[in-house]
Amino acid sequence: MKKSIVSVVLVLNSFFLFAQTNDEKTIKEIYKSALTNSKCYSWLDYLSNKIGARLSGSASAEKAVQYTKAQLETLGLDRVYLQEVMVPKWVRGEKETAYIQDKKTKINVPICALGGSIATPKNGLTAEVIEVQSIKELTDLGNKIKGKIVFFNRPMEPENIETFKSYGGCVDQRYAGAKEASKFGAVGTIVRSMNLRLDDFPHTGVQSYGDISKSEYIPTAAISTNGAELLSKTLKNNPNLKFYFKQSCKQMEDVLSYNVIGEIKGSENPENIMVVGGHLDSWDLADGSHDDGAGVVQSMEVVNIFKKIGYKPKNTIRVVLFMNEENGGRGGDKYEELAQANKENHIFALESDSGGFSPRGFSFESDDVNFNKILTWKNLFEPYLIHSFVKGHSGSDIDPLTSKTLVKAGLKPDSQRYFDYHHAGNDTFDAINKRELELGAATMASLMYLIDQNGIEKSKENQ
Amino acid sequence: MKKSIVSVVLVLNSFFLFAQTNDEKTIKEIYKSALTNSKCYSWLDYLSNKIGARLSGSASAEKAVQYTKAQLETLGLDRVYLQEVMVPKWVRGEKETAYIQDKKTKINVPICALGGSIATPKNGLTAEVIEVQSIKELTDLGNKIKGKIVFFNRPMEPENIETFKSYGGCVDQRYAGAKEASKFGAVGTIVRSMNLRLDDFPHTGVQSYGDISKSEYIPTAAISTNGAELLSKTLKNNPNLKFYFKQSCKQMEDVLSYNVIGEIKGSENPENIMVVGGHLDSWDLADGSHDDGAGVVQSMEVVNIFKKIGYKPKNTIRVVLFMNEENGGRGGDKYEELAQANKENHIFALESDSGGFSPRGFSFESDDVNFNKILTWKNLFEPYLIHSFVKGHSGSDIDPLTSKTLVKAGLKPDSQRYFDYHHAGNDTFDAINKRELELGAATMASLMYLIDQNGIEKSKENQ
Repeated sequence: MKKSIVSVVLVLNSFFLFAQTNDEKTIKEIYKSALTNSKCYSWLDYLSNKIGARLSGSASAEKAVQYTKAQLETLGLDRVYLQEVMVPKWVRGEKETAYIQDKKTKINVPICALGGSIATPKNGLTAEVIEVQSIKELTDLGNKIKGKIVFFNRPMEPENIETFKSYGGCVDQRYAGAKEASKFGAVGTIVRSMNLRLDDFPHTGVQSYGDISKSEYIPTAAISTNGAELLSKTLKNNPNLKFYFKQSCKQMEDVLSYNVIGEIKGSENPENIMVVGGHLDSWDLADGSHDDGAGVVQSMEVVNIFKKIGYKPKNTIRVVLFMNEENGGRGGDKYEELAQANKENHIFALESDSGGFSPRGFSFESDDVNFNKILTWKNLFEPYLIHSFVKGHSGSDIDPLTSKTLVKAGLKPDSQRYFDYHHAGNDTFDAINKRELELGAATMASLMYLIDQNGIEKSKENQ
Repeated sequence: MKKSIVSVVLVLNSFFLFAQTNDEKTIKEIYKSALTNSKCYSWLDYLSNKIGARLSGSASAEKAVQYTKAQLETLGLDRVYLQEVMVPKWVRGEKETAYIQDKKTKINVPICALGGSIATPKNGLTAEVIEVQSIKELTDLGNKIKGKIVFFNRPMEPENIETFKSYGGCVDQRYAGAKEASKFGAVGTIVRSMNLRLDDFPHTGVQSYGDISKSEYIPTAAISTNGAELLSKTLKNNPNLKFYFKQSCKQMEDVLSYNVIGEIKGSENPENIMVVGGHLDSWDLADGSHDDGAGVVQSMEVVNIFKKIGYKPKNTIRVVLFMNEENGGRGGDKYEELAQANKENHIFALESDSGGFSPRGFSFESDDVNFNKILTWKNLFEPYLIHSFVKGHSGSDIDPLTSKTLVKAGLKPDSQRYFDYHHAGNDTFDAINKRELELGAATMASLMYLIDQNGIEKSKENQ
């Protein structure tokens, strides 16, 4: 090797080492700031315990908009503003009731209406029950389900290591079960809660009647996993038992709401935008501390950390608290619509919407060039026990984003406990561990920092 | 390259691939068995909710011995037996009381006696308080602490990623604080609980008077973190406030107890013993579901999994449920004493005593040859999100083991929540997640399987 080449290699090597050492130092500062000097846990305390459940269109969702905007305004950002968006408004009404009528015995079971469902008749609905494990099984039964309540009882598969995989393998029953059952004349559907453990919490979530006509809509509800086990067992002994349920939920007119946005203007490339966000709305059964209060306050904490450690980003950092992820996705759609209209150039978007548990890594929607570049940073995350860098879904709110140079990522926290709480009455502040929440924020800030420093490559795939 | 060498390389390569594929298959079976067909969660339910706290020498510790022995006997092992061991018996007596006397105001604060402490005088103890952050600060104060209660208030450092590191940096105050304070004439010590969050649970734990004479023993107790904050704040306003506490704990005569042992005899090398274990005793303030009910049932589950999937180990697998880890370590000592007396050859020992949280990896006490060999298996664990293979402490109960070919390991679960519960009244069954517990058992069984298949090298270091 010629001397000059050796020199170039040595210079490049020391440049690389310098960069890594600088990165190591900044990332250490980021984690220290999060663990010793953060606001995310107290923000979440307020969101959860002072404001509470934040279903789109509710008064508390609007309080959350005002609260987070006011908090962002205290951080010394360059700009804090609201983005108008019309959102659906669905209301649960009175607490639902349900029982199994087994000959002369009535056994109460915990249910909750699924988001978007219609009400039962005022005095409730009673019918015989047919248990199925899948929409396929329902379709095979065809007209035999006429006049019946269809009971979807396929459990989440316990053997998957990633619980989101089990959710993905089950959630069609909840999302499309009523629509499909209606086609064959069912009068209602009851769906086993998307929950890996056996307990008494019914888990709500969005369902859709798709394109069937309004006159064919049937009421649909989730039943707790213990309730589902009981119903299934009782059915085996008495296939003619009846099920009663009553719910008074209602879809209202759309109402005005907001995405909440805060910005640090980039010092070198202000036209390049990097988004970090979560969703401000939650379901109505609890305060939504994991889904997605955690993601909201972690995203706010990212800019708080940058301010605290004095980091001045090269690109524009935009924290976006999206409205209406749970039952419409209107906030994400509106954000993209305006990004297009304003010809904005997003280079990166990161979402946290998988709970506030110990962070384990990220899932990326990225071309190979950028993904391989990101993989070279893995060693920087090792001291913080962040190890999982995979390709996969990033986040629902950033799904609509389409800028050409965009790489998207989702924070991946430990997923084992997530579906114990997801969309249920126990998704409350006490299920959050302060350190786990803070570590998630630090992990997000570290990735944002590295992307900001190194940029996103315009590869062949994304040009 | 000559053709023959190419052939050898190809054969070796396919052998390696075959071994990996076989290992992959077995490990998949292990995890599936743990997540779909395990007993560990129901065993823990019984241990925690039917038997409860299991302090050495207590009636419930003996119930736990009988229960776990009986359960091991249902698993079709080759041998299940008890190993006699004399253990210390310390009793807490009546619930402790304490208050801050700030001029005319009495403020109650939650405390608990530290394990091994003596009682206060019958009517309690009142004295002025000196707050210190360390034993060094206490020593510097010297005789100024005479007649006072020393209040150790150094918090666990929040910025460490591994919480055990923060524990290690603090626990001297609890373990040796009373002994050191006594040397300068203090009348008692109060120690801030080893807890990273602010709450109202005092955390007990062992303390030692070392070699000071019995007449110099002083009572010592832990105060909740909220209590510690309050005491510190109140002291700043009124350095002459008084602190009152009353406890009636007592050290009794040693009593007979047992290690519980179950064995699968090795099919090829029965003389080579591989231990997997946890400790059966717990502190007395709660049922000890994390510390160490989890480790006990996970260790039992390892042999249960081997039986369920029909795996016949080459070496002898011994599950050992040690007695008296918390306040004496007698079970571990006795086990080693008898291993020596019986000239047993232990090749490997694995302990689970860091809580039942999501498993992240292992810490190894190993020479480099074996550690490097183990590192080549990392890819086998990747699908199960097990990523942390480091050198470090394995476990207190297996500490005494000294066989020449021994490698030791400790399961490393996620540590963020551990000190929320450690030695406190909230270390109860509801803090356990079934899947996390099961994943820990599967991770342990997978490592046991790989060591069993591949053996331990007799390297220069350990010969």
